Amino acid sequence: MTPLFGSLCVVGPGLIGSSVLRRAKETHAIAGTLIAADSNPRVLERVRELDIADITTSDPAVFAQAECVMICVPVGAVENVARQVLPYMKPGSILTDVASVRGQLGPKIHAILPQGVSYVPGHPMAGTEHSGPDAGFATLFEDRWALLVPPDGADPVGISKIEALWNLCGARTKTLSDEQHDQICAMVSHLPHLLAFTICDTADNLSDEIRAAVLDYAASGFRDFTRIAASDPVMWRDIFLANREALLGTLDRFVADTQAMADAIRNGDEATITSKIERGRTIRRTLIENRQA
Amino acid sequence: MTPLFGSLCVVGPGLIGSSVLRRAKETHAIAGTLIAADSNPRVLERVRELDIADITTSDPAVFAQAECVMICVPVGAVENVARQVLPYMKPGSILTDVASVRGQLGPKIHAILPQGVSYVPGHPMAGTEHSGPDAGFATLFEDRWALLVPPDGADPVGISKIEALWNLCGARTKTLSDEQHDQICAMVSHLPHLLAFTICDTADNLSDEIRAAVLDYAASGFRDFTRIAASDPVMWRDIFLANREALLGTLDRFVADTQAMADAIRNGDEATITSKIERGRTIRRTLIENRQA
Repeated sequence: MTPLFGSLCVVGPGLIGSSVLRRAKETHAIAGTLIAADSNPRVLERVRELDIADITTSDPAVFAQAECVMICVPVGAVENVARQVLPYMKPGSILTDVASVRGQLGPKIHAILPQGVSYVPGHPMAGTEHSGPDAGFATLFEDRWALLVPPDGADPVGISKIEALWNLCGARTKTLSDEQHDQICAMVSHLPHLLAFTICDTADNLSDEIRAAVLDYAASGFRDFTRIAASDPVMWRDIFLANREALLGTLDRFVADTQAMADAIRNGDEATITSKIERGRTIRRTLIENRQA
Repeated sequence: MTPLFGSLCVVGPGLIGSSVLRRAKETHAIAGTLIAADSNPRVLERVRELDIADITTSDPAVFAQAECVMICVPVGAVENVARQVLPYMKPGSILTDVASVRGQLGPKIHAILPQGVSYVPGHPMAGTEHSGPDAGFATLFEDRWALLVPPDGADPVGISKIEALWNLCGARTKTLSDEQHDQICAMVSHLPHLLAFTICDTADNLSDEIRAAVLDYAASGFRDFTRIAASDPVMWRDIFLANREALLGTLDRFVADTQAMADAIRNGDEATITSKIERGRTIRRTLIENRQA
């Protein structure tokens, strides 16, 4: 079977990038040659030790060899990296990135494409609280969604190839506008992370005695909220700042809903409390039906 | 080996009660005779099918046979059930309950004890989002904490026996005052549940299009928050109402911390955002060290 690309270059082989490389290595279906590019020599050394790429380099000349370049760096760095990559890319090749906040990134990069290069970003909705090349695994995207956010005027062939790439990684794909994407991610991912960090902050501000107890007795609730609070601080700071408008809007609605629940508890309004809890169960059941639980 | 009690009666064999029965049945160390009491004949039938008790009954006369009666009904019903159980209990026997909010429950029940009966409540900090006799399992309490909250003047022999009971269930024990207990649980368990229900509520209030998307793309954050939102509505309504003071106080602090994070994001204050996220990681690391993650 001919692989989808002659060669694929992952820039920033961290959790996401190294998972794509592992999948590609295992299946031989994604690319004939696997390239890992990074400015950090220790990351490249680790990629070599893990044996998940054929070529490891920090030389930008390598981008000329790649039929597809996938930028897997933190949100705040994507545009800069794209500016370094694009001058080397050959006509017919495809640039993609996995940035989890879109904002104006799509149109900005689309505007600086060299002749014949297409740009089709796609954000895989999968992850763990770990980061770096060791954190990846080949099944990370299995049964998850990759949200394609092609800018207006993106090449249809490029779109179908990036769709195929994610399907080969085990993911389902969906195409969204940048604005839809950012609103959805604010609710599904960015708000939960903000709350997880904040509940830890609240616990940390308690008296020493109570804080120690919270840490001892974290089962049944608290620990579920804190798993994602172990995530990388710089990555999440950048995500919060990049998506600040949608995130703060969603947070406002959440705080208003929280105050409504607090009022119901304060007033002993049993019917309102129960109906709010019932909604939670309904949502949870739907998640299970949607294979997302 | 002689078991801890000649006979143990679990009133309300749901998630917690049936887990104690399963443990007792498996180990033979907790009680010679296992009794399950419930007002619902279908619950008793299910207990018989599961074969986790020697005697199943809704006749209160059975309480005269038990060396230990453990009330495992929802928080709001504990006092009433205790009033039905106590008149039958024999001198030398021990009453306990597993209520997850203490409030004034301890002193109230202590005040109506028959001569020679001791009362030592203990709340196991373990659970799942499921309920009923089918939901229990023998290892539910393994490595978890049982928080003993004996009222002033409780019999030391009773305290050490209830401590031994939880140790035989695999749990570690700690003795706390009612007030400490309720403050800790507000932070560790009640606030996370309130937030979980509320985030589902917020998601449910979104436009149809965005809500459907949230349900599709729930991985990476949202789903972790919603596991506990599948919990029993009436049980949680009662917990929220019973612990309203500590819970609303903790919620106020949490909302203030959330607003501080929102301000930092709005103002692009990178240092504050990063330091708040770093705290989350520290707390998470401590949980792992404390074997609570």
